[in-house]
Amino acid sequence: MTILDGKATSKAIREEIAVEVGKLKASGKKVPHLAAVIVGSDGASQTYVNAKVKDCRDVGFESTHIELPEETSEEDVLKQIEALNNDPEIDGYIVQLPLPKHIDEQRVLLAIDPAKDVDGFHPASVGKMVLGLDTFISATPWGIMELLKRYNVPTSGKNCVVIGRSNIVGRPMSILLSMPTEPGNCTVTLAHSRTKNLVELCYNADIVVAALGRPEFVTANMIKEGATVIDVGITRVKDETKKSGFALKGDVKFDEVAPKCAFITPVPGGVGPMTRAALMRNTLKAIDFKD
Amino acid sequence: MTILDGKATSKAIREEIAVEVGKLKASGKKVPHLAAVIVGSDGASQTYVNAKVKDCRDVGFESTHIELPEETSEEDVLKQIEALNNDPEIDGYIVQLPLPKHIDEQRVLLAIDPAKDVDGFHPASVGKMVLGLDTFISATPWGIMELLKRYNVPTSGKNCVVIGRSNIVGRPMSILLSMPTEPGNCTVTLAHSRTKNLVELCYNADIVVAALGRPEFVTANMIKEGATVIDVGITRVKDETKKSGFALKGDVKFDEVAPKCAFITPVPGGVGPMTRAALMRNTLKAIDFKD
Repeated sequence: MTILDGKATSKAIREEIAVEVGKLKASGKKVPHLAAVIVGSDGASQTYVNAKVKDCRDVGFESTHIELPEETSEEDVLKQIEALNNDPEIDGYIVQLPLPKHIDEQRVLLAIDPAKDVDGFHPASVGKMVLGLDTFISATPWGIMELLKRYNVPTSGKNCVVIGRSNIVGRPMSILLSMPTEPGNCTVTLAHSRTKNLVELCYNADIVVAALGRPEFVTANMIKEGATVIDVGITRVKDETKKSGFALKGDVKFDEVAPKCAFITPVPGGVGPMTRAALMRNTLKAIDFKD
Repeated sequence: MTILDGKATSKAIREEIAVEVGKLKASGKKVPHLAAVIVGSDGASQTYVNAKVKDCRDVGFESTHIELPEETSEEDVLKQIEALNNDPEIDGYIVQLPLPKHIDEQRVLLAIDPAKDVDGFHPASVGKMVLGLDTFISATPWGIMELLKRYNVPTSGKNCVVIGRSNIVGRPMSILLSMPTEPGNCTVTLAHSRTKNLVELCYNADIVVAALGRPEFVTANMIKEGATVIDVGITRVKDETKKSGFALKGDVKFDEVAPKCAFITPVPGGVGPMTRAALMRNTLKAIDFKD
């Protein structure tokens, strides 16, 4: 059984990016510049954005952190978006979600210039991915594909079940794994809340991607010997034995599933850290998408 | 066994659209205007475009048929696209494919204003479909979903196999059938050339969509009693008993498969005619997408 070590892989990728940035600098070229927009003072969002700014610094990117007060109007957020679209200095930017309730998230996301959409959430980015065109792939799906690639996990012709059809994980994973690419070329079944024979489906799969957000949902009886299991879930569960009072649980009951697996991602330290590498990689890529 | 009669359904839809156009006229509103661009003199393309122009006339749309000579440069085609994007009179338009080899199809399709993309091939249209946003759905997938809807074919929780992962049929069908909509909510498996256990997969499916383009590929042993079978294939096969010298064959061996089915589409007269209704419906819809 091989652990797909997302933490180490993410670090390796960020180090590779730092080398690329060094080359850009050495040849006198512009260094990638990421901006992050945050509206309001949600604690978790602040933490995420601070981590992204730190990652930028570590790989040598420029970064700009734009904080708007909670009460900013939708119109003013859209003006900020337009300014970022028109700013030649900014190569890519993200709008940290969730936005305050009085702002239409969809409207804001649609206003982002697809050439700067380093989160990969714009419909034009999603559509290009579906059509196999070069584009920004959103963080979690990109991270998973990159883990499969770097660990040489066999995928071609394999039966794969993706559990969960969210726009940010399950759906794009089902698409990427079935593309005529390597990794890819899986026969993918996308399972969701209406699926009737999930245990049987999973048990017949060579690869299971659990992205439903229910802690320890996938148990040993659902996984066949030699399968690959990717755990996207990360839920805080009360745990009085921990100093913090909670534990982070994945969607997979790791202790009983792992011994059966050829490859498995742990939680934490699996898919999660890869998303940090994804944003840096997309920001580096954004340079190529400029006119 | 119920035949899903695409010919009759398509006609019914076009009649409904004609009623809508009548209402627009009666209230003094602009009538939808479709333009079709054709480059070169490919015989089949001419036939398709003429049929589309005739359909426009029948439902009461305005239509413009733009013929450019075979030797038109890519730049001039792109200028034509820009003119159509900027023409407030034109609500939607299509560029008939294939284009001559010296023209980059992808570049031309990307230049189409997504708000006028009635073929639904632009990445922004595809991405919106994936994200469940209102958009133009391309003709064949829309036609199939509409047939399922109008015949009340049960889909929720059903196991569905889509054979073929093309950008214009298999891939979007796999997405639409698994969306949290009605019809939809299927557990979809997307099968393709690398799939290993196709016969077994199909035999366990409640719904099979055959879109691989291999005449009579799906045989009775692949289909369980009571299944629904959608045949997207249409291939000319030599047939000396016919006056024309050929017969049109679907991807399904209809005579032996049909008796086992709850619902099945014939070829011809099934999915094919629905695409005509799809283009008219998208052109009507284009009015809503105008600024």
